[in-house]
Order: sequence, then structure tokens, then C-alpha cells
Amino acid sequence: MARWEPNAAERLAVAALELFAERGYENTTVIDIAQRAGLTKSTFFRHFRDKREVLFGDGSMNGLLAEAITAAPATATPLEAVAQALDALGNRAFTPSRRAFAARRRAVIAANPELQEREALKGLGLIASMTEALGRRGVPDVTASVAADLGALAWKIAYERWSETLGGEEFGQAARRALGEVQAASTRC
Amino acid sequence: MARWEPNAAERLAVAALELFAERGYENTTVIDIAQRAGLTKSTFFRHFRDKREVLFGDGSMNGLLAEAITAAPATATPLEAVAQALDALGNRAFTPSRRAFAARRRAVIAANPELQEREALKGLGLIASMTEALGRRGVPDVTASVAADLGALAWKIAYERWSETLGGEEFGQAARRALGEVQAASTRC
Repeated sequence: MARWEPNAAERLAVAALELFAERGYENTTVIDIAQRAGLTKSTFFRHFRDKREVLFGDGSMNGLLAEAITAAPATATPLEAVAQALDALGNRAFTPSRRAFAARRRAVIAANPELQEREALKGLGLIASMTEALGRRGVPDVTASVAADLGALAWKIAYERWSETLGGEEFGQAARRALGEVQAASTRC
Repeated sequence: MARWEPNAAERLAVAALELFAERGYENTTVIDIAQRAGLTKSTFFRHFRDKREVLFGDGSMNGLLAEAITAAPATATPLEAVAQALDALGNRAFTPSRRAFAARRRAVIAANPELQEREALKGLGLIASMTEALGRRGVPDVTASVAADLGALAWKIAYERWSETLGGEEFGQAARRALGEVQAASTRC
């Protein structure tokens, strides 16, 4: 009986963000989110396993990062491969049209411990995806972990700067600049 | 009416770990944990805000890390200050008598997504404590973040090695060795 609903996951995320901002995360139910999006509860659960999950996409970012790292030239250093992954984020996920959504999403997550927990675990999953993709390029374990961690730190710095300024540089540029700062800092530790 | 119960937090953690291993996290209630520890539900909630929290101590580790970083000699590099924080963990938190508990705790957390989420968020809090303590030493923001991240990675590697081998090196030694590996890897990224 299930109908295919175009962009259902994105509509649910937008609806959830509105409701969390209006009445708080705790006072919003999955049914509220589905109704606001013009969808059903069962459609919600086809896309997200619980309420926490609705702001964290469909998991496709892990594959996006891994693919970009795999596609980097064989001569690329681990951090150059990570830079390509951050470029891919800018081109496919953190596009200019998503900047305002990203800023609102950050504020809502910062206000809620449950969402912070989910975000923290998602972050570890993204780091693991980068580490594994580097490993498949033959990068030794500890080096792969360090490169993925430095990439994640650059991502965090760039994401904050990018989502805070509506007219500034694009995500990919912000990420390359942050990665340069992080790499320079690692030599001063 | 509340009585002071010696070592209540530790008794609750040990009881919780036993129950999570025996019957699963989902099938264990706060009342079960309190009863197994010979304590009451209200004693549980004086120490921990929810069931997830019981394996994550009383938050004193954040202060322990910050104090050790503050106490490092003025001439210490950021990573040397972080190494002192990891030493403090070995001397005060991850002592030889806690090694078997640490191994069981890791296995229980690895089996449960809710505990993984809490652990991920606690990890970010510990990194923030180190970053802030480095900042108070005058270390620039990005350098402090990188040093804290590299320290956290060394901690993770050392904790896995230390908790897996009952007769091997102590935590502080494992952490210093891992920090050396991480620092060397950062120059090969």
C-alpha cells in the first residue's frame, strides 16, 4: 500500500527542523513531523529508525566520502585524498542552497543532548568511513586514522564558518582552507 | 532520608555491567541495577541522570585531564602536555585493577547503540576539556584542537591494547607509545 513519496526524507527533515525550533525536540512526536510534511508515520519509519535520526540523512554521506577518497589519484597523499572527500561534500551535500538549513540545524542540535549524542556517533561513523577508504589505498592504520581525524576537524571548522555566513566562501573552499590550517597546526604540536 | 553509600557509583557501574552482559542492556532497568548493587533507585539517580550514564563515571575525568595539562611545565609542547594528561589517566583512572572491568565494559558498549552514542558524546566532551586546558596555556585554537584530537586518538589506541591484554604494559606506557605513533603518522599525512 506504500506510495513512493518524492523527497520524503528531505521533507521530513525540513518539517522536523521547523517543529523542533517552534516547540522543542521533546514536545515534537514522529506523528507531528509526518503530518507537517504531509506524510504518514509509516513513511517516516521507512526512512528513519527513530526521531533522533531525522536530521541525519540517509547515510549516503559515508559512501560519498569513501568514493571520493577511492577516486583520488594514486599519487595523492592521505590528506590530499581527504581534501577530495571534503570537495565532494561541498559539491553534493553542503551546496549553497543548503546553507540556511545547515545553520538552523546546527542551532537545534546544539540545544538538545539527544541530538548531540546522535551527531557524535554519526561523526565517528564518518571518520571510520574515511579511515577505511584510506586503508584500501594502502595507507597504514594509524596514518589513516590521523588523516581522517584531521579531515574531520577541518570539516567541523569549515562547517561552522560556512553555516554562519550566508554570503561567504563555499563549503569546499572553506574546507580546503581549514585543512591547510589543521595541517600546519599539526606540525606545531 | 538519603544515606551516604560508600562507593555507590562504582557499585552501580559494576552491577550494571553484570546485568547488561547477562540479560542485555534493553532488558535491564534502573531498579534492577540498584537492587543488584544493594541500593535504591533514588541513590541511582543521585549519581546518574539515566540508565545510559551508569558506565560513564561521575565526570571527574574531564577535570583530571585539565589539571594535568595545566600542571605541565611551561616549556612543554602541546603534545607533551597531553602526554601528561594520559599519564594521569593511567595513574588515577585506568589502573591495573580496572583492566578487566575496562575490557568487559568495552564489549558491552560495542554491543549497544545507545551506549555507543553516549560514549561518542562523552568522548567529544573529554576532547573539549583538553582543548580548553591547552587554550588556557596560550596554545592557539586550531593547534589546541589538533593536539587534543591526536591525544584522543592515542588514548583510543592505547585503551584498546591495554584492555585486551591482561598482562601487558600499563595504560600510561601504552598511551605514550601510541602518542609517539600518532605523532609520527601525522608527519606522513
